[in-house]
Amino acid sequence: MTRPLNDNFLRALLKEPTDYTPIWLMRQAGRYLPEYGETRKRAGSFLHLCKSPAFACEVTLQPLSRYKLDAAILFSDILTVPDAMGLGLYFTEGEGPKFERPLREESAIRALTAPNPYDHLRYVLDGVSEIRRALDNSVPLIGFSGSPFTLACYMVEGGSSSDYRRVKTMIYDRPDLMHRILSVTADAVTAYLNAQIESGAQAVMIFDSWGGALSAAAYQEFSLYYMQRILSGLIKEKEGERIPSIVFTKGGGLWLESMANSGCDALGLDWTIDIGEARRRVGSKVALQGNLDPNVLFASPDKIANEAKKILDSYGPGHTGHVFNLGHGISQFTPPEHVTALVDTVHRYSKIQRQTS
Amino acid sequence: MTRPLNDNFLRALLKEPTDYTPIWLMRQAGRYLPEYGETRKRAGSFLHLCKSPAFACEVTLQPLSRYKLDAAILFSDILTVPDAMGLGLYFTEGEGPKFERPLREESAIRALTAPNPYDHLRYVLDGVSEIRRALDNSVPLIGFSGSPFTLACYMVEGGSSSDYRRVKTMIYDRPDLMHRILSVTADAVTAYLNAQIESGAQAVMIFDSWGGALSAAAYQEFSLYYMQRILSGLIKEKEGERIPSIVFTKGGGLWLESMANSGCDALGLDWTIDIGEARRRVGSKVALQGNLDPNVLFASPDKIANEAKKILDSYGPGHTGHVFNLGHGISQFTPPEHVTALVDTVHRYSKIQRQTS
Repeated sequence: MTRPLNDNFLRALLKEPTDYTPIWLMRQAGRYLPEYGETRKRAGSFLHLCKSPAFACEVTLQPLSRYKLDAAILFSDILTVPDAMGLGLYFTEGEGPKFERPLREESAIRALTAPNPYDHLRYVLDGVSEIRRALDNSVPLIGFSGSPFTLACYMVEGGSSSDYRRVKTMIYDRPDLMHRILSVTADAVTAYLNAQIESGAQAVMIFDSWGGALSAAAYQEFSLYYMQRILSGLIKEKEGERIPSIVFTKGGGLWLESMANSGCDALGLDWTIDIGEARRRVGSKVALQGNLDPNVLFASPDKIANEAKKILDSYGPGHTGHVFNLGHGISQFTPPEHVTALVDTVHRYSKIQRQTS
Repeated sequence: MTRPLNDNFLRALLKEPTDYTPIWLMRQAGRYLPEYGETRKRAGSFLHLCKSPAFACEVTLQPLSRYKLDAAILFSDILTVPDAMGLGLYFTEGEGPKFERPLREESAIRALTAPNPYDHLRYVLDGVSEIRRALDNSVPLIGFSGSPFTLACYMVEGGSSSDYRRVKTMIYDRPDLMHRILSVTADAVTAYLNAQIESGAQAVMIFDSWGGALSAAAYQEFSLYYMQRILSGLIKEKEGERIPSIVFTKGGGLWLESMANSGCDALGLDWTIDIGEARRRVGSKVALQGNLDPNVLFASPDKIANEAKKILDSYGPGHTGHVFNLGHGISQFTPPEHVTALVDTVHRYSKIQRQTS
């Protein structure tokens, strides 16, 4: 395996020098792009879009045609693993994902097993291979999964939740059951990410969207511990190239030190922490990815440029290990031309920083 | 003014020694109590419940009859101030508060003025006086307001929001307009809290429910700055007694140091930070209030007791300045008898701690 032509993203994750600060955007393939809407219409349903390798590939590449992004990320749903576990994923208009059979009964929890991704998630792996072929080694492809805790939230609540009442009741009342769910899910995610790597993913990211809803102690026990277990089971190198891993806990700013010790190569940051402060806290251990508030993209292009420069300045031009990103997924209401302003600013300004530092 | 018979809450806020760790619960008067449901039915509507001093008093006292709480908090809505500014507060079933005239136009923002609480919020002040009479100096009464930023979120969005898109667009695109809203609102809140103090509130709390949605820099500029302005304008002492102030930014754990320098006497903490760590960071400056995850109250009483003890142990029995509370408002689905387990554990265990330390 040779590194892609543009390998700034991989180099930044490994804290190697880069020509400029690489950028990609969480949820960069998605509803804010009119061409995505077209493809989704042709696909018929969101689930069919996810489950068809050809559609997933088409959608993954769309933002790369529009913007000079430094990485592609597999287009898929975060809930493919619990779906493969037999919980019955479906989507309702305006209400997001739901499960037909949420995990509520002890017997169902005891019966849970980790699916073999080559049997039950073949469509994702085929998508990865197809995207890699289409990318033709131009930029690296990121594989991903939800964290065990985040998946467990959906699995137990049966959909998204504002308070995680059922999940937390289980955490405090029946921690044994929650650990059972998380343990099986961690095994499933490890196998799933390794299968993505075998199929061509050149970096992997674990999205812990809901870990930030936990107390400090519960985060360690019910979210970070299982991400660590996954990280220790991941393929670290393929054909001589390191496969870097990124961990992102939204709302995890208080816990960066322990996250940096989890065995990952990089931490994703939401926008609530100053990235310079985060670098001083953990930057000798890991690279950092982030962290513009996605809502900045609603402002005018000159304001977007200002806010992006503040982040680049705060990280500090003399330091390796920064991947620019948003602090959360891009909003469906984002004007597509505003993304151009962001990507161009990050590239141009970070080049100037390197010349003058 | 003499201190109430049970002044442990006030003493803890001032970091004076207490007989035990005092406890009250955010939203302690509310929907989880069947007697609240009865009163609300008699009141006809939520707004009438808030706007009638007699009903507000009745509801404020309900949790104190059930539980040995160490403070009462005025029952009122967080949006009384913008309502008094003329935005037209109303409630829709299941969707929460809304404004008939959200702040979207520059002309409306320029025309905004701070209402005189003695004219426009008389019903709140009458409620405070009536509650103080009914409490008969048993426990202290807490007055409160939303923070300027939190109120501005509702005022600009027109209701609650999942992403604060309109507010943040204004912050980044038209900071001058956002500062104008915040400045007028800060004046209004200062006058409102001072009027509550004049009417009998013995401590005040500023609820910054949405400040945690901001970036580190935006929090300083658009939320904390205006809370500081309020704090510097508050009546500090009445009839020889200090009126302590509490600032609570949900999701503000990263910013405790600057919050502790805002001029408040105590910080409210949500459950994402370990309270012992928070004490080590800022405990020499301010008292701390918190910080049990409200969802712990869904577990069985023995599990609730365990989690409460962990917080008391983490704060450390040798240290003054802890008011026990939840990290956010109590859920409407909480079994009322579980609250008894919490209150009793906090009182009993903190007394034992004092004997053995």
